[in-house]
Amino acid sequence: MIGPATVATHTFEDAPTFDVIIVPGGGGLDTFDRENNTQIEDFLVSRYESTPYILSVCNGAVTLAKSGLLSGKRATTSKAAYKWVTDPKHGDDIQWMPSARWVNDGKIWTSSGVSAGMDMMYAFLKHIYGDEEWVDFVMNLIEYVPHTDPHWDPFSVVWKVSLFFTLTKVLLVGILTRNTTPPHDYLFRHEC
Amino acid sequence: MIGPATVATHTFEDAPTFDVIIVPGGGGLDTFDRENNTQIEDFLVSRYESTPYILSVCNGAVTLAKSGLLSGKRATTSKAAYKWVTDPKHGDDIQWMPSARWVNDGKIWTSSGVSAGMDMMYAFLKHIYGDEEWVDFVMNLIEYVPHTDPHWDPFSVVWKVSLFFTLTKVLLVGILTRNTTPPHDYLFRHEC
Repeated sequence: MIGPATVATHTFEDAPTFDVIIVPGGGGLDTFDRENNTQIEDFLVSRYESTPYILSVCNGAVTLAKSGLLSGKRATTSKAAYKWVTDPKHGDDIQWMPSARWVNDGKIWTSSGVSAGMDMMYAFLKHIYGDEEWVDFVMNLIEYVPHTDPHWDPFSVVWKVSLFFTLTKVLLVGILTRNTTPPHDYLFRHEC
Repeated sequence: MIGPATVATHTFEDAPTFDVIIVPGGGGLDTFDRENNTQIEDFLVSRYESTPYILSVCNGAVTLAKSGLLSGKRATTSKAAYKWVTDPKHGDDIQWMPSARWVNDGKIWTSSGVSAGMDMMYAFLKHIYGDEEWVDFVMNLIEYVPHTDPHWDPFSVVWKVSLFFTLTKVLLVGILTRNTTPPHDYLFRHEC
């Protein structure tokens, strides 16, 4: 293993109740997927009712999808990993949003790739704490100017998953052989 | 301790040589300061010659200042912690830049608070790797639009440490009693 180890304080078995569960992304999710390891999904299902808020960042949305918790809901995910995460095999009645920095539907919040999690978290804090001064105080402390428009998503264009590209692809299919797969697709599925 | 433990792979004694050393910020630096704990400073001094690049984020610049490695150099730091870090007791011949997202001087790079470290790191990668495509590829992967102007620093205004405020303070001193200390100054010194 490269880098310092991070040691969990609890196991899935002895974890306390939570106000918020944040489901991270990462390369490991692809490994879990291939190995049919559903430990995180099982834990999320067992905690869904008792947890007021469940958030995911990047391709962590695939875990929510596979757990069934996104069933009938709107959600988004990493645009680099979009094709992999939104594969119907991970859940077929999810309303995936191709152009969104983050999406909130009920108790579930999902964000786009990596740094989009910071903007979702700002929106989430504003949702919970309203205009309490300390939320913006913290932004000034960490010197971060959050994107506050959930529709701001230049990366949906970069990764060609926006509605425009989806429609264009549908129109052109059968007419042109058009490769909309971004370069290095393999990497995107594995890193978040 | 709240949250998972992070376990270092090496001690100061058995650490290998490094291409890059990144000096983090954080509340602990204030504790080290009060306890005259100079372990990090001593390590940095011992590695300065053999390390091609040394970077600091946020109030981590106080560690570089106290180690003497910023002597005669330009540098910046967290704007919330600016007054504390730049106190001459931490080093009196440092050219602190009050309005800078990051500063590069020789082998040393210093950034402003927390998220400014991301922009410094992008600039650092461009410095090392030039226009190699993968640097921007990674930005697209993590869905981050970096600030590429080192002079972009709205937080120097928020925290009233910019040249404008410094000059205004100098002009008004003795005429008005003017409190330029931001609210909650105590907290800013302790959290990064």
